[in-house]
Order: sequence, then C-alpha cells, then structure tokens
Amino acid sequence: MDKPISPEQFAELLHACYSDNEERLMSDHQRSLSFQDGMFDRWERARRLGFGERTSIYNSATVFGNVEIGTDSWVGPNTILDGSGGGLRIGSFCSISSGVHIYTHDTVLWALSGGMLDYSKCAVSIGDCVYIGSQCVIAAGVQIGSRCVIAANSFVNDNVPDGTVVGGSPARRIGVVIGEADKVSIIFDSSEKISEVRIV
Amino acid sequence: MDKPISPEQFAELLHACYSDNEERLMSDHQRSLSFQDGMFDRWERARRLGFGERTSIYNSATVFGNVEIGTDSWVGPNTILDGSGGGLRIGSFCSISSGVHIYTHDTVLWALSGGMLDYSKCAVSIGDCVYIGSQCVIAAGVQIGSRCVIAANSFVNDNVPDGTVVGGSPARRIGVVIGEADKVSIIFDSSEKISEVRIV
Amino acid sequence: MDKPISPEQFAELLHACYSDNEERLMSDHQRSLSFQDGMFDRWERARRLGFGERTSIYNSATVFGNVEIGTDSWVGPNTILDGSGGGLRIGSFCSISSGVHIYTHDTVLWALSGGMLDYSKCAVSIGDCVYIGSQCVIAAGVQIGSRCVIAANSFVNDNVPDGTVVGGSPARRIGVVIGEADKVSIIFDSSEKISEVRIV
Repeated sequence: MDKPISPEQFAELLHACYSDNEERLMSDHQRSLSFQDGMFDRWERARRLGFGERTSIYNSATVFGNVEIGTDSWVGPNTILDGSGGGLRIGSFCSISSGVHIYTHDTVLWALSGGMLDYSKCAVSIGDCVYIGSQCVIAAGVQIGSRCVIAANSFVNDNVPDGTVVGGSPARRIGVVIGEADKVSIIFDSSEKISEVRIV
Repeated sequence: MDKPISPEQFAELLHACYSDNEERLMSDHQRSLSFQDGMFDRWERARRLGFGERTSIYNSATVFGNVEIGTDSWVGPNTILDGSGGGLRIGSFCSISSGVHIYTHDTVLWALSGGMLDYSKCAVSIGDCVYIGSQCVIAAGVQIGSRCVIAANSFVNDNVPDGTVVGGSPARRIGVVIGEADKVSIIFDSSEKISEVRIV
Repeated sequence: MDKPISPEQFAELLHACYSDNEERLMSDHQRSLSFQDGMFDRWERARRLGFGERTSIYNSATVFGNVEIGTDSWVGPNTILDGSGGGLRIGSFCSISSGVHIYTHDTVLWALSGGMLDYSKCAVSIGDCVYIGSQCVIAAGVQIGSRCVIAANSFVNDNVPDGTVVGGSPARRIGVVIGEADKVSIIFDSSEKISEVRIV
C-alpha cells in the first residue's frame, strides 16, 4: 500500500514518541527539551562531526563548512558554528553557550550590492578553556586565545589575547584571568566594572 | 515485519503532517511556525511542567531543573529557563519574550580551569507583571521584582527592584513604572533616553 | 489496526530519516542542520508564504501575521518575523541573519497591567539591499531604508535612513554606505569606530 499510516496516525505517534522521551528526561535528568534536542543524542552528533572525545552538540545547533572542536567541549542549543569561510577551530574544555553564533563569512557587501559582490570570508580560531557566554556573536576573522571569557550577549569583532575577559557590543577588555587549573580566577579592570562579576 | 515503512515514506508522512498543520495554523491564526512549535501544543506542555493556569510555553523552549511559573504568563520560542542551579521562580502575567535565556548556573570557572572547578550556581526569582524583552540574558543570582521592564537585548547581571525599567549590557536603570492596573505607565529617567521608548 | 507501528519503531525511523538527510547534506553542501531545518526545504516554505522569487526561509523561523518579502532575500534559522501588529514589509536582496527578531507588536503594557491593557502595535518596513546582522532585534514601528547595515547584536528602536550603518543597543549611527552595485562600500564615522569594521 502507498500510505501505510495516515497523517493523523503519524501525528499521534510523533506525540507518543516525544512524551515517552520527555518523561524519561524529566525523571532521569530533570529537564524538558524541545522535540529535536530531546530526540537526538548530542554526543553521537559530535562523533559524526568528528569532534573530540566527550564533546557534545545539541541537535538545534547549525554547523556549516569546516568546523573542528577538541575534547570535553560543550556546544549549547540554538548555536551556529560557521566554518564555511575558511575554517573554524575550537579547542578543548570550551563552553559555547546557548545561542552563540560564530561566523567565518558575512554577506554585508552581497546585500548592499544587490548580489553583485561576493561574501566576505575569513577563518576563526578559539583556544582551550574558553567560556563564550550566551547569545554572543563572534565575527569572521576573529582569533580568541586560551583561557578567555566572553561575557554574555557580546559582539566580538576584534582579537582577544590569551587570558582576557571581554564584554559589550563591540566587546572591550573588562578584566584578566590569573592563575590556572583549580587556582584560576578573574580580576576586573576597574571597580566600575564590579557589577559585571556575574558573567554568564 | 521489522521496518513497516521506509525512510522515504516516513519523510513523506512528516511533510504531509506538517503541511496539514501549517495550513490550519495559517487559516485559523495567520501564523507559520517551525515544525516543532507547530506540532506540539504550548498550553499542554505548560500543564505537564506544572506551570499555572493559562500559562503557555513553546516546544522550542528548553527547561532545566526546578522551574516554577505562575498563571497567565507567556514563554516564547527559543527561550531557555534554567532552574538547575537552585531554582527559578517566575510570577504571573509575565512576558518571557522569544529568545530570552534565564540562568541559575554558569560554567565560567569550569571552562577556565579545564574542568577542575565546579559550576557556579545561584537561584533566580522574577516577580509578577514583568516584561522581559527579546533575546535578554538574565544571569544566575539575579532577583527581579514585580512590574519591571527589561529592554530587548539586555544582559541583566544585577538585581532589579520593583517598578524599574532597565536596559543595556550590562543593564542599567533607564526609567520607572508608575501607577498600576490599567493606569500603569513608564517614565524614562532623562530626555536623552527618549528614543528608548520603544522597548520591545 | 490502530497503532501500525510502535513508538520505538517510530523513533528508529525518525533517526534513519534524519541520518540519511544529514549524510546527503554533508556530502553535497558540507553542512549539518538541525532536524527541522534539515528535513524541510527553505525555498518551498518561502513560496508557500508568498515571498518573492529565490527568497528562502529556514523551517526554524517563526512567521506571525502579515509578512511580505521581495525577491532574492535570505532569512536565517531561528528568526522571528512578526507581522501581527500592522504588517511587516521586507524588500529584495536582504540578509535577515540568523536569530534576528523583527516585531510589529509588544506586550509591555499588557504585562505591567496584569493583562488589563492591550498589546501595542505598529507596522515595520525594511527597504532593499539591507543587511541585518545576527541576533538583532527590530522594535515595532521602525522604518529601515534601503542599502542599510545593522551591526550584529543591535537593538533598533528608531528609524534608519537610506544608506546608513547603525550598531549598538539602542542602535546609533556609526557610518554611511557610499556608491552602489559593485562599487558599494562603507565609511565609518570616526577612527574610534575602526574596530567595528567587522560587522557581521
């Protein structure tokens, strides 16, 4: 037969399948995910994409082009990792928080020229032990060192040296990272910045 | 039989199911949603999560840990409600706009230390009648009172007292809410801020 | 029979279907999309919504109310196009980057009044050849001319004249667009702004 089940039966199965999954996630991990983030395994996807051991990436993340990630990194829901413009390399022990967008191309001149000019393209690299806060945008061409913190909701359009804390749109230096391993801590540049201590 | 339908038939059913749904949503509500937000009911999900009467939450929202919400609140697509770090309480008649992220934990020191230090955790509470604009990020530990407005695209890393309007990254006070019920209105702090009257 | 396949079989088919699709996308276009953005065609959706020739819109985009878009425009993942408050018109050759939210209504007074006051509503129009960077929020009532650039992560709550570059929250003028077609370029207002040259 051509249509073994009806759209109505399909919708019922879709709901049954999601409900089973949600119930299990709630009782095992106290979390309720969207359909796609709940149904697809994030470690399995990271393996398929060739990322390092123990790295995970949610199904709702979008991955373009050539993207490499080390071990033990976490890539949140609704992120965009764009390696289409020359390659995107991310190290180990990085937190790529939910909603972060990292680009290696932009279409500014394409749009302004009515499609006559090409996309701009430039590679991006991010070191080890880097925290990128929620909803940050990292522009094409940016290089971020190791042990850096990018405050939430920042737009980074310039390089960030090793051990630096930046924030804002565009992001400016607001502090430094001192020490390492379990002795690591952050020192903010000025007392004025004291309220930025919370840097999720 | 083991595979009662083929992946191709499955994909066809998926499309038929979504098309039916989209057509109905367009003619009944003039809206076109993503697959998951279209296929799953947002009031039903709110009930399953124990939220108050008439509160709704889109399927694309992510809910971690212990999250409580009162009645008549609206939680938009692509939001993140994280109660994993000590509990997240949100009151009644709140607008949690699309793309808002509210956190009770962060992984800053975890990342900087290469996984040697723990996550930071702190509870968050939000009062009644609060408007949080699109794409805001609320950091762990923040307490927001009642009748507050958080301008779109803000990063809130400090407490917001009752009846306060804040905006920016990090968010600063830009006005106050006066009156109540149908006499409520906003007064901005300075003429300089006049263009922030639009605070979606 | 009532349940022709079990939820487990359904989940297996879901995974098989997505894997086939992902493999094809990786080998043909070197990209790995979320389930819904991978399974549903973005040009087909644009046609169903009555958008112009060669315009595309990802499945994860949310469309409310009356939205019109010209030809050759690109609407990214996780965008929100809200025409529910009086209509949203977008021209041709526009880049509506991933995570952009454009609103024609807000619920500020609805929330503050505990549901006693109505939504605020106002139409939005955007010209041709406009680049709106990732994660921008455009407020109800805003008019954006042609050949404009909105820097990533901006909150636009005021009109933007033809040929203007704006950025920040709220967005301020940071430059102008000169020339046209393949001779188009950007001049920033001050040397201080030089680091904003990257405006993805």
